[in-house]
Amino acid sequence: MRGAVIHAPGDVRFETLDDPKIVNPTDAVIRTVATCVCGSDLWPYRGIEPVEEPHPMGHEYVGVVEEVGSGVTSVRPGQFVVGSFATSDNTCANCRNGWQSSCLNREFMSTCQADYVRIPNAQGSLVATDEHPAEEFVPSLLAVSDVMGTGWYAALAAEVKPGSTAVVVGDGAVGLCGVIAAKELGAERIIAMSRHASRQELAREFGATDIIAERGEEGVARVKDLTQGIGADSVLECVGTAESMRQALHSARPGGNVGFVGVPHDVAIDGQELFFSHVGLRGGPAPVRGYLPDLIDRVLSGRINPGRVFDLTLPLEQVAEGYRAMDERRAVKTLLMP
Amino acid sequence: MRGAVIHAPGDVRFETLDDPKIVNPTDAVIRTVATCVCGSDLWPYRGIEPVEEPHPMGHEYVGVVEEVGSGVTSVRPGQFVVGSFATSDNTCANCRNGWQSSCLNREFMSTCQADYVRIPNAQGSLVATDEHPAEEFVPSLLAVSDVMGTGWYAALAAEVKPGSTAVVVGDGAVGLCGVIAAKELGAERIIAMSRHASRQELAREFGATDIIAERGEEGVARVKDLTQGIGADSVLECVGTAESMRQALHSARPGGNVGFVGVPHDVAIDGQELFFSHVGLRGGPAPVRGYLPDLIDRVLSGRINPGRVFDLTLPLEQVAEGYRAMDERRAVKTLLMP
Repeated sequence: MRGAVIHAPGDVRFETLDDPKIVNPTDAVIRTVATCVCGSDLWPYRGIEPVEEPHPMGHEYVGVVEEVGSGVTSVRPGQFVVGSFATSDNTCANCRNGWQSSCLNREFMSTCQADYVRIPNAQGSLVATDEHPAEEFVPSLLAVSDVMGTGWYAALAAEVKPGSTAVVVGDGAVGLCGVIAAKELGAERIIAMSRHASRQELAREFGATDIIAERGEEGVARVKDLTQGIGADSVLECVGTAESMRQALHSARPGGNVGFVGVPHDVAIDGQELFFSHVGLRGGPAPVRGYLPDLIDRVLSGRINPGRVFDLTLPLEQVAEGYRAMDERRAVKTLLMP
Repeated sequence: MRGAVIHAPGDVRFETLDDPKIVNPTDAVIRTVATCVCGSDLWPYRGIEPVEEPHPMGHEYVGVVEEVGSGVTSVRPGQFVVGSFATSDNTCANCRNGWQSSCLNREFMSTCQADYVRIPNAQGSLVATDEHPAEEFVPSLLAVSDVMGTGWYAALAAEVKPGSTAVVVGDGAVGLCGVIAAKELGAERIIAMSRHASRQELAREFGATDIIAERGEEGVARVKDLTQGIGADSVLECVGTAESMRQALHSARPGGNVGFVGVPHDVAIDGQELFFSHVGLRGGPAPVRGYLPDLIDRVLSGRINPGRVFDLTLPLEQVAEGYRAMDERRAVKTLLMP
């Protein structure tokens, strides 16, 4: 089969690779129907995370089951399935608590920009749709496997409640999905922080009621202007830099909450500042598995359309161009079709 | 009148001071019935916080109203009142949200180890009991004004729920009150981390089901032993050092919560570590005002007896000895009677 391999920052190649096989009885192998490039794939692509040696890429996927191990009974060959970037057995103590992305047997996916993919923990990780979905739903189901599930978690971690005010820091695919999540969870006012016209437009389409283009303390001041001077109930931090975290923490009101889903890079939080802010903080890789049934329903019922975040679709073999377009900010997110 | 003044680390004196007067219409002046020395008073006493110039001390108090400003109608002279270390108007946006200790007009108390005290924001801050309470209740009502209210907040910030497992880091007065709070909020298992026999005993009396004497990663390992290997649902951090914060964060399970009420000194939280822990974190000065009616009821009904944390009672004029005893760990907490 063929798949993407990163060799060095800026150097992603489409290569012939060994076909994946069942290794453990809990594995499945799927034929990829759609995959994509994630904002976090840009960390090694940009050299911010080291590339020690060439390795496959990709952790977002929907596909059709080709083969299952002897321990897998929840899905069967021929079914269309959605998974998560973090696989989970869905039976351990952390999974039972609803924290599947901290599963004691977790394996992060990392080979999904390819024709076929081995899925560890398939029994606990994959959710099959009743039938093969219409083509129009594929991008949104793919989004559910990571960015939409992550935006959903950001909103839950930020404790978005009906009638509340939510701020979304970051206008990438996750931030935009965070707007969808805040809307679905009943936020009355949704403030998207974005300085790009096309992303502002999509944020509004997804439910943003206000747009703030300013950043840093200036952006925080604008949030305060809109929130009785005290800050927002909930803030979704969807970037992962020291600057975005600061902006998020300062935008929340005393007693408010920040949900942070951008993997933090060089972020240290001052204990005393957090203390006096009275802000609650929770982050992490989203426990997408727990949300899959609900989010798949919302997609197939037409209630949400997170697939709109894909503004570039390429054949999988052009994966390198998919990275380039996102790196150069010509695309928010690239959909790849094998 | 007379009151405590700190001149330098280790140098607290009992001096003649001007009688406090009504300055603003929202003030009251109370005659102190009981006050005490707080663990946080030891920061300047030990020179960890600088003492720039001599200043009065103390922020815990119960007393009898002597005089009120023209804007104060909620309490009247002669009433026995309980307050909080942080005064609040109880009407601003933050107060209405239940975060009175982030009141937009907040003033921290700092002159309470004295015969008389001026209370700013008296209208919003003071709660009167129906009648002058029996002497036996005075220590517990005093505890409510700070350590019990703070332990209560720690348990709420750590989201202690019925049937859950709670860990309390710190066996000072606040930690011990945190044990009471965890019990009242329904925790089934309460693990107190303490290496002092007398404090262990009081923790058990307050409801601790398990005691862990080990500290640091060894203490964390013992918590994991008691919690299916994953950590506790809720952790109350009641110290404020980098070491205690680390111990607290590592003791919580993925999806668990740390409530931190020890004012952090040189604490920085690594963003990426917090991210992958899936632990929720909230701290701050406790919004005691909001809890006062409930906690006063619990004390007067005999349901809780946080006054047990006072293991040394001195006349106010011996305040210097009160500090010394706590500094040398001869006392958990010193009650001072004018």
